[in-house]
Amino acid sequence: MEQEEPAELRGLKYPAKKHALKVKEHFISKKGQLLENKSAFFIAGETLKLYAYCDETYPLRQNRYFHYLSGVDQIPGCYILYTLADDKLILYLPEIDWDDVMWSGMPKSLKDAAQQYDVDEVRYEAEINKKLSDLSHSGVTIYTTDTKNYADKPFAKLVKTADKDFFYALDEARLIKDSYEIALMKYANKITANSHIAVMSAQPIETNETHMHAEFIYHSIRQGSKVQSYDPICCSGPSCGTLHYVKNDESMKNKCSTLIDAGADWRCYASDVTRCFPITGEWTKEHLEIYKTVQDMQTQVMNGIRPGVAWESLHCLAHEVMIKHFLDLGIFKNGTAKEIYDSRVSVWFFPHGLGHLIGLDTHDVGGYPNYDDPDIMLRWLRLRRKLLPGMVVSDEPGVYFNKYLIENAYKDPKQSKYIDKDVLQKYLNVGGVRIEDDILVTEDGHENLTVVTSDPDEISKIVKKGIAKGRQGFHVVA
Amino acid sequence: MEQEEPAELRGLKYPAKKHALKVKEHFISKKGQLLENKSAFFIAGETLKLYAYCDETYPLRQNRYFHYLSGVDQIPGCYILYTLADDKLILYLPEIDWDDVMWSGMPKSLKDAAQQYDVDEVRYEAEINKKLSDLSHSGVTIYTTDTKNYADKPFAKLVKTADKDFFYALDEARLIKDSYEIALMKYANKITANSHIAVMSAQPIETNETHMHAEFIYHSIRQGSKVQSYDPICCSGPSCGTLHYVKNDESMKNKCSTLIDAGADWRCYASDVTRCFPITGEWTKEHLEIYKTVQDMQTQVMNGIRPGVAWESLHCLAHEVMIKHFLDLGIFKNGTAKEIYDSRVSVWFFPHGLGHLIGLDTHDVGGYPNYDDPDIMLRWLRLRRKLLPGMVVSDEPGVYFNKYLIENAYKDPKQSKYIDKDVLQKYLNVGGVRIEDDILVTEDGHENLTVVTSDPDEISKIVKKGIAKGRQGFHVVA
Repeated sequence: MEQEEPAELRGLKYPAKKHALKVKEHFISKKGQLLENKSAFFIAGETLKLYAYCDETYPLRQNRYFHYLSGVDQIPGCYILYTLADDKLILYLPEIDWDDVMWSGMPKSLKDAAQQYDVDEVRYEAEINKKLSDLSHSGVTIYTTDTKNYADKPFAKLVKTADKDFFYALDEARLIKDSYEIALMKYANKITANSHIAVMSAQPIETNETHMHAEFIYHSIRQGSKVQSYDPICCSGPSCGTLHYVKNDESMKNKCSTLIDAGADWRCYASDVTRCFPITGEWTKEHLEIYKTVQDMQTQVMNGIRPGVAWESLHCLAHEVMIKHFLDLGIFKNGTAKEIYDSRVSVWFFPHGLGHLIGLDTHDVGGYPNYDDPDIMLRWLRLRRKLLPGMVVSDEPGVYFNKYLIENAYKDPKQSKYIDKDVLQKYLNVGGVRIEDDILVTEDGHENLTVVTSDPDEISKIVKKGIAKGRQGFHVVA
Repeated sequence: MEQEEPAELRGLKYPAKKHALKVKEHFISKKGQLLENKSAFFIAGETLKLYAYCDETYPLRQNRYFHYLSGVDQIPGCYILYTLADDKLILYLPEIDWDDVMWSGMPKSLKDAAQQYDVDEVRYEAEINKKLSDLSHSGVTIYTTDTKNYADKPFAKLVKTADKDFFYALDEARLIKDSYEIALMKYANKITANSHIAVMSAQPIETNETHMHAEFIYHSIRQGSKVQSYDPICCSGPSCGTLHYVKNDESMKNKCSTLIDAGADWRCYASDVTRCFPITGEWTKEHLEIYKTVQDMQTQVMNGIRPGVAWESLHCLAHEVMIKHFLDLGIFKNGTAKEIYDSRVSVWFFPHGLGHLIGLDTHDVGGYPNYDDPDIMLRWLRLRRKLLPGMVVSDEPGVYFNKYLIENAYKDPKQSKYIDKDVLQKYLNVGGVRIEDDILVTEDGHENLTVVTSDPDEISKIVKKGIAKGRQGFHVVA
């Protein structure tokens, strides 16, 4: 389980050149053909940034736009230049800092970089100024995302920032994943699946949320994912009701439920998976009822995922499914499903969006959310467009019993009248359930990239099998 | 092994108030008593910072100056104000962001903060502007480190930045650790020791450097250290010769040596420990010879650590010890120890400084290095002053066989004549050895805070015991 290229990618380079061409197409579709010979793209990679008053740096998290056009990850201070007239992609590496070689070793050579990356040329940064000056003098407009990592360099004044069409082109290109990107995301999902199974299997040495966090990260790193796509969310009991809970430090004693939202990053591509399991291996009645509610929401959405479908309609479908279950369970009462839906009371139990685009970013570009939407049901939906083949979206409905949110529902009598407080009371210690899979939209439907089971019986078996092994702490002290 | 307060600190608060008084004393010693009534200190805590073009944030790493005066860690956007005239310490919390409560839960209340932190008052940020304006109008100068996290706030123009005496006072206060800080550092070292032992014990499931990295982090997180003091350095074979190697992704097959430089952070206090072990459990002749050389360097330095001793003299002592061993081993020849020492050829085998201050930062403040020192033996020494009781320093000599550095030695015939190339050849695959402990300077000598063995026989036993357990992979797949 070492960090190897997925088999289907062995010998292939990250398709930076194809990405540049895709961005160009979208760019020209906005700007018009005439600008083709008069435009270039220039993006700076991320640089190392120091913590305040300290010689340690933040971890290097590559700028995704730069990565998309270069395939370069852990080298700070690079640049990529693409000239549209001749479809030429040039990677610029930082000058060698000889003082740093003793600390960090020899940096990658021009030759090695040319061999590794799908670019036409590799040069050192010192050549950038002349190149951009020449382009500029010959009337080429050099589009860039921003100059914040090179504001002090002479070539910063030669570029054009904040051009909406350039961002549009980048985002539309990134929206549709090619086979290479899909292979990376599948591999990220494979690592993530193993890590989730490991967390489920590690009872009874998980007595604090931090132990689940440790378990996930351990297995993720062992499989070659040194970083996660986002800070893992490891909850138990009531903390499952806090959507982005990342403290991960509460005791799990006397609780029934867990919620782990965690995904490995593989070569800058994200996975984003949530699983819930019962701490004892045995679902409580209430926990299982909520789990099956969310499972039904997720499945019905999944069955609807195909090109041409508006994501909003699936989001609303999830609410409808939830309301039906809440009526059956008696948590909702005093109204028809339609009346309850229209009151928006379900939003306080499923407050976030159904899902978002996934790619280089966990919340990937191109979704065009509207966080000012007057309809609270749609406000936090991060994807507001019709599905297209090649998009990868998360299907992640949830049901939460969050004190603060429930208070909101109680405030408005037009909503509170639909809630049976006594029945609701029984579910509070479940905290929350979310089930999240990463779904590729295909020409004729969808493919689930997530390969860890969400079947409650299978999950129960995995947890029990782990308990049966009887691991007694994992501290190896000689 | 959950995240608990060290026993000796239970019920005690982080001594922010005492720290403020210490900073005041050093400040007044520079500025003069008259300024006491006319000065205040104001420092902003760290804020969450977004990755480029992404809604994910960098991990929050608290500003150490702010932490020193407040004890606050994982709350972004706080401020601390200390008025010297009345010795009053006020913590300002950020306003509650109600939109964020659904995602992150309710933030800490004023009351809870007042209970947890050693401050006189806790208020919300909205009150800062009036308070600083009042102080300013009454002639008080408000010293700050910088305004970069609040440049857009109205009170940013009321403060005085870049005052050398303020930084001097902060750094001199942080230089000498109090009993609370020492207890934190001891606990960090305890976690670190267990994690190092775990890495040593985890053969044979460590076939790639990344597995050692995973093992260290796993055990560190399980013990409640969610973050490490610095990016762990996990090397094997030749990569042990790269001082700040953090790729941690090479195969360990057919190599003899490892070098793990990693330390857990405990409540913002650092530990910094390096251990080396033989992959098979059995030291090769050459590996052990180099190990014993470094061990002798480290021990002789340790014996010399006491108040009043100049750190430079111990650094030079380490070089002398190394040269003696290299002469015995035959790596050096053709000269006396003194001639070889004067030629500075030993610098290419022990290029970094002997050690540095440790505290809130891994490379803590107050060391006053001189990175422009014309003497290459002293250039990278991060601590250039006499030892004082209460300082914590790393004692971390090393010997490296780094191709790039050796080339430097060969370039200059005045140095290369002392090297026996044939003998040297035998040691190249050792890569390097470093042994690093965290040492508290006491009134009458020193105390070693690092509690993991560096005895080569004991280390060999730990590794062999781990191998004997015969762990066969750690992937739990149901």
